[in-house]
Amino acid sequence: MSSNVIQALNSWVQVHKDSDFSIYNLPFGIFQTKRLTPRAGIAIGDKIIDLSVLHDEGFFVDITQLPNDIFLREYLNDFIALGKPVTKRVRERVRDLLLETNGKLRDHQCRGKALVTMKEAQMLMPVKVGDYTDFYSSIEHATNVGKMFRDPENALLPNWRHLPVGYHGRASSIIPSGIPIHRPKGQFKDQGMESPEFGPSRRLDFELELAFVVGKSTKMGDTVSTSEAEDYIFGFVLFNDWSARDIQAWEYVPLGPFLGKNFASSISPWIVTLEALEPFRKKSPEQTPEVLPYLQTSKDHAFDIQLEVYIQPEGMKPSKVCTSNFKYMYWNIAQQLAHHTVNGCNLNVGDMVASGTISGPTDDSFGSMLELSWKGTKPVILEDGVERKFIEDGDTVIMKGFSQMGDVRVGFGEVETKVLPTK
Amino acid sequence: MSSNVIQALNSWVQVHKDSDFSIYNLPFGIFQTKRLTPRAGIAIGDKIIDLSVLHDEGFFVDITQLPNDIFLREYLNDFIALGKPVTKRVRERVRDLLLETNGKLRDHQCRGKALVTMKEAQMLMPVKVGDYTDFYSSIEHATNVGKMFRDPENALLPNWRHLPVGYHGRASSIIPSGIPIHRPKGQFKDQGMESPEFGPSRRLDFELELAFVVGKSTKMGDTVSTSEAEDYIFGFVLFNDWSARDIQAWEYVPLGPFLGKNFASSISPWIVTLEALEPFRKKSPEQTPEVLPYLQTSKDHAFDIQLEVYIQPEGMKPSKVCTSNFKYMYWNIAQQLAHHTVNGCNLNVGDMVASGTISGPTDDSFGSMLELSWKGTKPVILEDGVERKFIEDGDTVIMKGFSQMGDVRVGFGEVETKVLPTK
Repeated sequence: MSSNVIQALNSWVQVHKDSDFSIYNLPFGIFQTKRLTPRAGIAIGDKIIDLSVLHDEGFFVDITQLPNDIFLREYLNDFIALGKPVTKRVRERVRDLLLETNGKLRDHQCRGKALVTMKEAQMLMPVKVGDYTDFYSSIEHATNVGKMFRDPENALLPNWRHLPVGYHGRASSIIPSGIPIHRPKGQFKDQGMESPEFGPSRRLDFELELAFVVGKSTKMGDTVSTSEAEDYIFGFVLFNDWSARDIQAWEYVPLGPFLGKNFASSISPWIVTLEALEPFRKKSPEQTPEVLPYLQTSKDHAFDIQLEVYIQPEGMKPSKVCTSNFKYMYWNIAQQLAHHTVNGCNLNVGDMVASGTISGPTDDSFGSMLELSWKGTKPVILEDGVERKFIEDGDTVIMKGFSQMGDVRVGFGEVETKVLPTK
Repeated sequence: MSSNVIQALNSWVQVHKDSDFSIYNLPFGIFQTKRLTPRAGIAIGDKIIDLSVLHDEGFFVDITQLPNDIFLREYLNDFIALGKPVTKRVRERVRDLLLETNGKLRDHQCRGKALVTMKEAQMLMPVKVGDYTDFYSSIEHATNVGKMFRDPENALLPNWRHLPVGYHGRASSIIPSGIPIHRPKGQFKDQGMESPEFGPSRRLDFELELAFVVGKSTKMGDTVSTSEAEDYIFGFVLFNDWSARDIQAWEYVPLGPFLGKNFASSISPWIVTLEALEPFRKKSPEQTPEVLPYLQTSKDHAFDIQLEVYIQPEGMKPSKVCTSNFKYMYWNIAQQLAHHTVNGCNLNVGDMVASGTISGPTDDSFGSMLELSWKGTKPVILEDGVERKFIEDGDTVIMKGFSQMGDVRVGFGEVETKVLPTK
């Protein structure tokens, strides 16, 4: 598909024009219902296509690489590991079957079984995450943090423009949308404290990020060039990198964030494929100084994905607190993946690689409360005049993301997480 | 078993008095041979007990929790997850069967099949590592690093004595002893360089560590106290946390080590159980200032384990470059585990938690070349006058560890890794 030219498609499944799950999208996920065990599905409108039913009924019979039970496994890892030639064919087959001109599934006796109502399904983790890496690739975010905590005149550290700074996070505590988290406890030493204290975090924060899911493994010692990098990326999810700012600030020197982050990260459950995002490809911001050859790219690797964050205090409506865009990222996914493997570090299918907080250039496009409230000095005003500097118990944080061009909309749905008091 | 009192035991399997794998040890591992698929074993002298044979022959028939194929799985995770009451009974049963007074296995027709010659076996990863955490718990190491890179008068950062500083590492690149690694490439900006350069690391280093293997999972939001912590620890392995000092120095601010570490970590393949180390339990060094209540301990959680590092240049004999001891650690394993979970971070069976470089108080007890050569200013002299500041291509690094009291020796074997040129 050539960039930015989209053929109009219509489905016999009714899809609202504001739905993230149009026929152009068709993301993969793992769901279960009261009656159905965990299985792989594709979202369309407010329905889920149960891929195991389609497989049973022979709709994929010519895609011979698909094991019989491939869509009945707990995670998508094995399916993704079959490779893009296979996963693309499955997605394209489902698209063809959903076209209004195609009666094969529409008029098939299995139709009722194959289409599950999304409301009746619970979305689970789409992949088993082996390793999780978090980058720090938004220049606006890194600059804001540098201004607040270091030197406003030299906000970026010397390495920042030369390499995509990143670190390893905790894979075990990545959870899907809908699962509440408890406010973490920990040590902190705020300004004015003589010695560190212990208790519930007082500065709980979200970080608005996108994460890509690794779609192809590499061996130890192997490197992947920027031009090959996208072959190793299956798709994206929204990623809320929960952060306890007080715990993080006290612990993070010299080895980086640990307990300030590893209590939870929340993701949207549908993996939007790189193919679905193809029409929204963009040029990345220019990089100065020029990067080393292994980080140079010849293709556009940024994507125009609008991102929003809402805070919903208990018993209230959600208020939008941030509107950002993935296209602002200084370091792109091809550079991140090439950098990650340049030393021979091996990647596995299902690994998650997050972008870092995605902040834009304006005050209302910052991707964390730390920045929106400027370190708690400037409250963010929600509906009915409610104020927030950080996230409070009972608040639900909702992140949304979508790409739109005319009537064509490809979105992520949301990642929505309620914060409960300390356990 | 009460501390420091060991009943003399003898086995009908001949065990050399200097063997790490005495009847007091009986560590668990996963091995394969030319004829045998991967399976679980226990080391004794220069033999491996094939646990699947013992299980088939009914030696564990009364341990009803053991699935039929439990010892034929690729990793020990499922076995360890059965819990200490089960894993201890298996180990004790094997010990009883190996006693010279016990003829049940010695005189059984399966004896030849049950005892595999260690030399004919290849040791594999004992567990599938979900998440890997690295602490920084040696005060001598942290002080040395602080003196070299920060302020010699204030070598320790303000948080260091208040919490066990730690960070997340890469699980995918943990490999067993015997697998060579390639020198990593990366970006570095050494003193005097105008801008960063790219190439093979010039300061490749080992870090002498021990890692514990998590033996019991926790749920998100749960915390484990220091007094319960050891229930969650199955055993230990030697851990060589390979480090590229030049890559690390350039990348690590502000989010910690990444490509400087994640190209490889090498472990000894036998997991020595906490039970086997019981007689070598020690008091940890005193902690000043007093730590917060959640980090206080009432029991001894340090262990007297002598550690050695050798460098063997190609075609030469190994030279010992370091003699250290695990008992020096300022922060102990109970504190590390309690800290790791105090914010509700969940642990899984098979997770690895490494100690950080284990340096002692004397110049010859430092656990890295960085410290032994004091940042490359003071070459380390090997046999025949060969000098090393860091690790060179063709060098093999060997780490050994053992506890000894009189004739009783409980050891780890070794982790031995050859460094090949950049791929």
